[in-house]
Amino acid sequence: MLKNDLLLQAANGQKTSRPPVWLMRQAGRILPQYRKLRSSFSGFREFIKTPDAVAEATIQPVDELGVDAAILFSDILVIPEAMGLEYHLVEKKGPLFPTTITDLAGIESLQSGAEAAVKLEYVYEGLRLTKAALNDRIPLIGFAGAPWTLAAYMIEGSGSKTFSKAKKFLYQHPDWAHLLLEKITETTIAYLNTKIDQGANLVQVFDSWAGILSPAHYRKFAVPYIQKICSSLDRVPVTVFAKNAWFALEELGQLDCQVVGLDWNTHPQKARALIDPSKCLQGNLDPCALYADTQEVERLTKQMVHSFDGPHIANLGHGVYPDTPLDSVRCFVDTIQSL
Amino acid sequence: MLKNDLLLQAANGQKTSRPPVWLMRQAGRILPQYRKLRSSFSGFREFIKTPDAVAEATIQPVDELGVDAAILFSDILVIPEAMGLEYHLVEKKGPLFPTTITDLAGIESLQSGAEAAVKLEYVYEGLRLTKAALNDRIPLIGFAGAPWTLAAYMIEGSGSKTFSKAKKFLYQHPDWAHLLLEKITETTIAYLNTKIDQGANLVQVFDSWAGILSPAHYRKFAVPYIQKICSSLDRVPVTVFAKNAWFALEELGQLDCQVVGLDWNTHPQKARALIDPSKCLQGNLDPCALYADTQEVERLTKQMVHSFDGPHIANLGHGVYPDTPLDSVRCFVDTIQSL
Repeated sequence: MLKNDLLLQAANGQKTSRPPVWLMRQAGRILPQYRKLRSSFSGFREFIKTPDAVAEATIQPVDELGVDAAILFSDILVIPEAMGLEYHLVEKKGPLFPTTITDLAGIESLQSGAEAAVKLEYVYEGLRLTKAALNDRIPLIGFAGAPWTLAAYMIEGSGSKTFSKAKKFLYQHPDWAHLLLEKITETTIAYLNTKIDQGANLVQVFDSWAGILSPAHYRKFAVPYIQKICSSLDRVPVTVFAKNAWFALEELGQLDCQVVGLDWNTHPQKARALIDPSKCLQGNLDPCALYADTQEVERLTKQMVHSFDGPHIANLGHGVYPDTPLDSVRCFVDTIQSL
Repeated sequence: MLKNDLLLQAANGQKTSRPPVWLMRQAGRILPQYRKLRSSFSGFREFIKTPDAVAEATIQPVDELGVDAAILFSDILVIPEAMGLEYHLVEKKGPLFPTTITDLAGIESLQSGAEAAVKLEYVYEGLRLTKAALNDRIPLIGFAGAPWTLAAYMIEGSGSKTFSKAKKFLYQHPDWAHLLLEKITETTIAYLNTKIDQGANLVQVFDSWAGILSPAHYRKFAVPYIQKICSSLDRVPVTVFAKNAWFALEELGQLDCQVVGLDWNTHPQKARALIDPSKCLQGNLDPCALYADTQEVERLTKQMVHSFDGPHIANLGHGVYPDTPLDSVRCFVDTIQSL
């Protein structure tokens, strides 16, 4: 029994006295204690592979900010790695895959499903340690990247403004792309189900590069795989956050998920008009609004909450930026919790 | 009298036998003759400051592809430079401003209006040479960056995934931001009016970073300045292309402009539902669709054209990517011209 289960109430479409609140990337550089912990590791990947450090980073924002949910500290690219595609993280540049997916043989050689997901024992151990330390105070969220976003990195080999190499692959080799997406999907389902076995109370799927696909390609190469994940996870609520996929809001609203995350470009009322009132919406203050003075942060936060209608989980419209003043983050959380 | 004025007919809301077609970035790396010309200059800025090279680059795609419009080869950042803010272009990284806008004094020291625009004589000379060489075959488009996009670069100092420094400035110093935007607007009006004096037949305003603002900020810091530009240019049609500003489509449709450009995420029918049928729409094939084989390019191009309703200028939904096969570009243009 969770002491504070506001997040799950809202996710399940119940009316709550106030919206639960957490922030994407709340476990991160906004916190001095995180920066101290991070500095004890030479690399980020070493950090996320150390279960007790993962638990510590996950719980820091809970203790410091009093948010209504914890989210297990990790990285979406652990899935490609478990499937056999190694990556590095280059300081200030992001992920880099020395080998990328270029042909059918590359896709066939990837491991998938439970066989791949079992390699992520360090994540599950971090989750168990976190659950123990949380001591049922609040729900713990587990997350994964959406299949298209992971495929985009695996083909492109790095971040990109256009992901034109990955998109080219969809236009030139649609059948291979579907095979790759299927293997990622199977792995993600096994991964998230193990997280749920170990105590995750809700899972969130991040489709970070949703917005670079055309509506037709998003419908073909993204939505069916997200739907497959949603329909395979029936024990806890699922949140789908597809950044910049405003053009697919109606389809996202029809997924077997309980929560749809909104970015800061999407007016909550426009989203609500397309999404059934039984579904919970999450979001969506502009992360840059937290650069304003705290009086303005308070005003903008209230305005954001009032623009939502129906079940709502308060959050930013994207991950909190690393240089955001902690006082503003605190003001954002406190404003919502005092409503 | 232009021999082919399909572009202007469509822009003015007239029914045309087929849509006119051109491509954003058609003067560029897709053409071997461009790459040859480019290689004779050590820097891109030296290139765009050489009027006869500008005319040559502008006309290359007209001769090679037979497009229905030429667009004067230049860069949106000539305006900040004319206002007093120097920039460099770093290979593979993009623009870099050694000095950025951080305070009121920096904004006050910028030149603006005709006083700044007069420094862009090399652009006007390139335009005159282009007009002479075009010999009234087709219309010539002049362009400028939208005030918000230029301000974003001037504050951020470079390209950015989030433009969080520029957005922070809007939240922390809204009055200074308005002063900066006003000065950019006045300069842009003087600049575009001089281009029109010298023979530009249509002007396009590119708001490349529209999509990173919240709807409220876009309404406050972007739309009024674009509107001021539109209402100051009454001699030729104006196209507004605000990338990823789907949330503002209705407001863009109410501007004193004749054409609204759509990116590839925007379904033409959804746009048309928000924009008066008297206004022309431009776009919007996914630039990556041109990586498909030519049979598929033909199919997707026809599908795109048929999804538009009312006056339409065919184009991609973004600038053509440098590694796009020339045969596909040709197929795109030919498919539309044979409709």
